Order: sequence, then C-alpha cells, then structure tokens
Amino acid sequence: MAGYKVAVVGATGAVGRTVVRVLREREFPISELRLFATSRSAGSTVQYGDVQVEVMEMKMGDIAGADFAFFCATGDVSKEFAPGLASSGTVVIDKSSFFRMSPSVPLVVPEVNRHQLAGQRGIVASPNCSTIQLVVAMKPIHEMSRIKRLVVSSYQSVSGTGLDAIEELISQSKTSLDGGIVSPRVYPRQIAFNVLPHIDSFDPSGYTGEEMKMVNETRKIFDEPGMRITATTVRVPVIHCHSEAVTVETEAPLDLDGVLDSLGSAAGVVLAREPGSYHTAVECSGRDEVFVSRVRKDLAFDNGISMWVVADNLRKGAATNAVQIAECLAGS
Amino acid sequence: MAGYKVAVVGATGAVGRTVVRVLREREFPISELRLFATSRSAGSTVQYGDVQVEVMEMKMGDIAGADFAFFCATGDVSKEFAPGLASSGTVVIDKSSFFRMSPSVPLVVPEVNRHQLAGQRGIVASPNCSTIQLVVAMKPIHEMSRIKRLVVSSYQSVSGTGLDAIEELISQSKTSLDGGIVSPRVYPRQIAFNVLPHIDSFDPSGYTGEEMKMVNETRKIFDEPGMRITATTVRVPVIHCHSEAVTVETEAPLDLDGVLDSLGSAAGVVLAREPGSYHTAVECSGRDEVFVSRVRKDLAFDNGISMWVVADNLRKGAATNAVQIAECLAGS
Repeated sequence: MAGYKVAVVGATGAVGRTVVRVLREREFPISELRLFATSRSAGSTVQYGDVQVEVMEMKMGDIAGADFAFFCATGDVSKEFAPGLASSGTVVIDKSSFFRMSPSVPLVVPEVNRHQLAGQRGIVASPNCSTIQLVVAMKPIHEMSRIKRLVVSSYQSVSGTGLDAIEELISQSKTSLDGGIVSPRVYPRQIAFNVLPHIDSFDPSGYTGEEMKMVNETRKIFDEPGMRITATTVRVPVIHCHSEAVTVETEAPLDLDGVLDSLGSAAGVVLAREPGSYHTAVECSGRDEVFVSRVRKDLAFDNGISMWVVADNLRKGAATNAVQIAECLAGS
Repeated sequence: MAGYKVAVVGATGAVGRTVVRVLREREFPISELRLFATSRSAGSTVQYGDVQVEVMEMKMGDIAGADFAFFCATGDVSKEFAPGLASSGTVVIDKSSFFRMSPSVPLVVPEVNRHQLAGQRGIVASPNCSTIQLVVAMKPIHEMSRIKRLVVSSYQSVSGTGLDAIEELISQSKTSLDGGIVSPRVYPRQIAFNVLPHIDSFDPSGYTGEEMKMVNETRKIFDEPGMRITATTVRVPVIHCHSEAVTVETEAPLDLDGVLDSLGSAAGVVLAREPGSYHTAVECSGRDEVFVSRVRKDLAFDNGISMWVVADNLRKGAATNAVQIAECLAGS
C-alpha cells in the first residue's frame, strides 16, 4: 500500500507537533505529508522521524487533495476550511471544539464509540482532552450498569493550553524560587505553585467552557442526553497529563471485583488494581493509555464507585485519539 | 487581666510556629509562654513578636501548671501527655488526630460548633486542616437545608506535611527545572510538577487516612453520623493553602441567591459572589478566613450546589482554629 496523503493544520503547536510524532510512531501509512500553520510559523520545520518537514502557510489550494487532514488549530480555522475540504473528499479529523456538538458530526473516542465511524467520511470531531480520558474509563462501567450520575474534579496540566503556557509555568517557577514577583501573561493568575479553578471562559451559570465541554461531550459520546454530570475543572502546575477524581453512580449496584475485572480488560486502559497503588502525571507522560487507579466503592452513593484517572492530554487526550480515528477510517 | 500561662508543644514545626505567631497577632493574653519540642530542637528559638523564645525539651514537669497547652506534635505525644495535663487542670487544645474521634472529646471549629465548648475543660480537639475549611463553608448550607451528601476533591499544599515537605517541593522544583533527576524523600513520588492522590496511609477499602478524617470528622462536627460523604484527597505542588472542589446535595432545593446571601454573611467566610470571580491558594496565604467562590447550582443533583473553597491550612486549618478555641474558653 502506497499510503495516504496527510495534512496537519496547526502543525507547530503543542497538539500538531504531537500528531506528527504519533503518526510516525504508529507507522500510519503516508505517501505525502504536508504541514500547515499561520504565516508567522511558515518556513519553520517539524520533525517526522529523521526528517525535518517544512511548514507551509495555510492555503486551501495546498490542502485540497489530502486523504486525511488533522486540524489542530483554532475553531475559526476549522470553521473556515473543514467543510470545503470534507465536501471535496478529504476526511477531516478536527481537534478543535467547533464541530463537536454538530448533530451531523460524529464525536469519537475509538475505544468507546468507534461504531459511529461506520461509513463515515467528511468531518469527524475528536473530543476535548479531559473528556477523552473520562469516557475511556467510564465505558466499561457504563456497559455493566447504566451511569446515572458523574461528579468529576480535574487536575489539568498546562500543556493543554499550549507551548506558551508550558513556558509560563517554567519561567514563573524560576522567578518564584528566586523570590521574584510573578507577572501572569497566559493565565489570569499565577500558575506556578498555585491551582486555578478556571479553564476556558465562564458562562452566566458559573460553569466554565471546559466544564460544559465535559458535560455535553460525554453525553453525546455515550448517546445519553439525560446523563447527570457535574465538573470542576482546575489548572495545576504540571507540564503534561491531566488527572481526574471521578465519582460515578450507576443504576444497579456493582461488585467492586467485577468493576476491576472490566477495567483491567478494557481497551486502552491500564489499571492499578491494588489499594494503595496509583499512577501520577509524571509517570504517564508520553504514554498513550488511560491510567486508572484508586478504584473503590464510593461512600456517598449506594451504587457508587470512585477512581483516579490519568492520561497524557497531548497524546490520548489529543494527538493519539485523532490518529486512532484515522486508523479506524483507513482500515475500513 | 494578667493573662494565661500558655504552653506550645511541637513549637518548632510548621503548625507550632504558626500557633506562636497567631497568639501574638490576635493578642491572646499571655503571662508566661513556654515552648516545647523534642530534644533535637531544644535550645533553638521561635519568634513571638519581637522576642525570641527559647524552646525546651518536652518534660511533663515543665508543662504542668499551664492554663492552655497547644499540642502541635504527633499523636503519640498527645497520647502520652494530654490526659495527665487535662486532669491537673490544663486545657489541652490538641491539633493531632489522636483524640478527635473520642466521644468524650469535643471536636471544634468555633464558627460551626462552639456550643460544644460550653462548660468544657480538659482536652479539646481541633480537626484536620481539610475538614475545617469544608465545615466552615458547609455550615450556612446545612442550616438552610440538611446536607444529604458531600463529594469533595482536594488540592492540598505541601505545608500540611511540614517544613521538610516545603523544602522537598522547592528542591525538587529546582532540580527538575535544571533537567536533573528527582529523588523523592518525604513523599513517595515526585511532588514537583506532579499531583499525588495519596495523603496519609491507605486502608484496605482503598481510602486514605486523610479521606476518612474528612468523612468522620465532618460527621462528628455536624453531629450527623449518617451524612453521606466521599472524598479524594490530593497533594499538589503548592506551598500554602488547601483548595477544595465541593459538591453538596441538600434535602430541600435551595435558591442560589439565598445560598450566596448566607455564605456572604457567614462567620469566617469571605465570598466571591460573581460568576467568574474566584480565590486561589497564592492569594489566600497568610489569611485566617475560609474563601468561598464559584458557587453554582449543581448539574448532577436537583438539590445540589457546587463551590470552590480555599483556606490557609497552617492558619485556619490549624493554628488559627486552635487559638480561636482558646479564645472561646478564655472568654467563658
């Protein structure tokens, strides 16, 4: 097989660079790779295996003809370019939030709802990072007994914001350790040695965009519009990987050993089964799986389970999930 | 009034030093101040206002006769010395966990259950840091409608572990920023640029001691043994102040404006009322109040409220609460 013509839009950002790396690592069959960014980044290069690939300024004519286009830029870029590309035959895998809630666009995490890719061309949306790891961990439970309620608190790394946020955490940490005064730039408050209950913008109800993404995307992925979900999403001074404290209430009571067995054999899940064993962000960095630990009978619900869920937000939470979608479609 | 004879046991630790500072700041009437620690720390000094007070090795004979003794050492020290002191007339305010769940010992947060101090001498226990800020924020809600259920995720600073943990976070952060390899010593894993779902030891059910303290102490303080509470307590790379994401379900539906009014006028609470306004650990450091923000109707419960609660764990979470208990008893 000669491979596919692949385009990556937003290739110089944190997610775009990781898509290029993951395409190479997973040996996605590529006959031609074109990388795009804004004019500011055009001319720079991104590493694909041993090759430095030059980045071009984003132009419709240069992307047209691609078999797969990964959109890792803003929603505005997806809005402008994705529909035209899709109608000319390119499969657009969109990491932006723009099309996620469109009824005609599937929102896919392959371990959870790859069936929604059947016969699909056009635009496929990849969910938000914090949603992806949640639904991978919840899927085996939802199969055992329908989920009634989810309460999630997140501990999200700065790489979810982008490369400038990583730089801000590092420079603020140095300044702070040297006794200097920190001047926030990317985040509204100091992120070094601090935690911010604020990701994305606030709506009048008091929830943030990030929290509502977790609510709405999870419902769509499970096709359960009535699932009761609440979230508090929090930025923490961690470089890579999001962690989540999750409490789930199911319709029927669940046996803890049964839950552990299901999680232990679930696609894409690495389980730490023993009480006292757990995963942390630092160890999960660079990994593609969703790491589940601290699984226990919940104390607040008769039919409740609590757990700790960690995943690399740039990989499974973004790039790897997008490439997995492409693999599903390439194989079909 | 001449003032009281006051002893502080464990005076060189993070909490003990803060008790001495808070006694001075709040002008607790003192005629004699004696500071105690292990033999290792004896001879060092702790600052009380402009005075350097020498620390003595802990000996029963030297504490006897104190009107108030603040125990800021381990549970073993409290177990050995507190009962004898209490029976000879000293009021022991115990910051260790040893007596907290004893039925004969009141567990007190003055804003919540100061009535349990009426006529009390002997031992009074001060709750765990993460419990104190939770119950101060929950008290006005519990008064509006009985709390059925609480789901708490914490973001706890390293100063809760002690001065050596602050040192570890700082040194690991420097090592990490310099590209070096981190060797954990105080914590079981790297704490710099990481979050650990592990505070205190694990029990066979999968909960940690810290989580069960939050469950059991909250029930005792509210005198609600059936209150359903679950917690995930997490250490974050923050120096001072614990933050908590709290979801509360009440028996009756609550009007959000009514909840905000109650919180806004509650003793010891500072409320950020507007959606989008919030407090973070860095700004609350050194403060004595409990900071409540992001108060919103919860999406997972019909009668639910979610919020973000921050307090300085060494002050309101430990030293200030202990000194407030002494103030209540001194005034009575």
